[in-house]
Amino acid sequence: MSQDSLAPLSRLLAKLPGLGPRSARRALIHLLENKDDVMAPLASELKEALETIQSCEVCGNLDKSSLCHVCVHPGRDQRVVCVVEGVADLWALERNVVFKGVFHVLGGTLSAIDGVGPDDLRISGLIERVQGGHIDEVILALSATIDGQTTTHYVVNELKPFDVKVTAIAHGIPVGGELDYLDEGTLSTALQSRRDVG
Amino acid sequence: MSQDSLAPLSRLLAKLPGLGPRSARRALIHLLENKDDVMAPLASELKEALETIQSCEVCGNLDKSSLCHVCVHPGRDQRVVCVVEGVADLWALERNVVFKGVFHVLGGTLSAIDGVGPDDLRISGLIERVQGGHIDEVILALSATIDGQTTTHYVVNELKPFDVKVTAIAHGIPVGGELDYLDEGTLSTALQSRRDVG
Repeated sequence: MSQDSLAPLSRLLAKLPGLGPRSARRALIHLLENKDDVMAPLASELKEALETIQSCEVCGNLDKSSLCHVCVHPGRDQRVVCVVEGVADLWALERNVVFKGVFHVLGGTLSAIDGVGPDDLRISGLIERVQGGHIDEVILALSATIDGQTTTHYVVNELKPFDVKVTAIAHGIPVGGELDYLDEGTLSTALQSRRDVG
Repeated sequence: MSQDSLAPLSRLLAKLPGLGPRSARRALIHLLENKDDVMAPLASELKEALETIQSCEVCGNLDKSSLCHVCVHPGRDQRVVCVVEGVADLWALERNVVFKGVFHVLGGTLSAIDGVGPDDLRISGLIERVQGGHIDEVILALSATIDGQTTTHYVVNELKPFDVKVTAIAHGIPVGGELDYLDEGTLSTALQSRRDVG
């Protein structure tokens, strides 16, 4: 019964983003009804990931080795580093974009409200990589939020002493976006970043 | 990286109801960022549940023993059996309702479209329990869907030879429901089931 033996498992599932108490119970029943197909493989994959997945020493990506497969891939351009907030952003870029450089995961953004300072992020690691001297360009791909932009400005400042090109991804109207539905912030950013196309 | 070492885990998480590919990736990152709080306990609870959880021999509930804790509880009235479609429904009744009887889980409903016949459900088990002679009332608590009501009628027919009271839960306007927002089916059922309150 849920209240007794399965309650801890149900509560743990409810901690996953996207699941609440009710959907966690549905997920739990789905698991119990598909023991061989889903539950057993999930348990073993979780156990294996727990034991093997680690942060890449260079970029902070998650992988089975101490250097992630992006960092060791011979086809990647080690001179172009794309700075992202989290591993999720790195994965999104890897899925969707033809980016042939490497990454640097900050592990969040500066946030006065949440008390996140520069020492809480992997900014010093980024500076060390730049100091190493083999990097031509740092692309800042942080969120278009206040915290994300604060972090962008901070990193830009920190990188000023070094002979490296620093760029930031463009903000504007999303592809397929209709002006009518966009917020004022996006619209004014898109206006300010207008390009000469004549 | 997602594409490589974590892809199987991500795919398994996406099989859970309520999660899709994108939310499964978010869940995976949440797990990896909370290894000690969430991921490790989840892996061990899953493993334990896999090894210990089984179907109750009497009612079909899921529990750690071959007889579930509802069936063996001394305070439950073994003479009143509530028939439900699935374990989720049993749990919902246990959470929300003061029901002091015991349960019988059918494991689904009859469905011509899905090819579910009487032999695919635990109907014979219910009849055996009634044949045992210690049951006064069978309460049918199945969905108010076509398949649920078909199943209700089938079970009512199967139980006709036996000296047992057979009831079905009431259908009507949900508590707190506004007429304006209810579908026609619920409204007409509620009208047909009107009670004398004068």
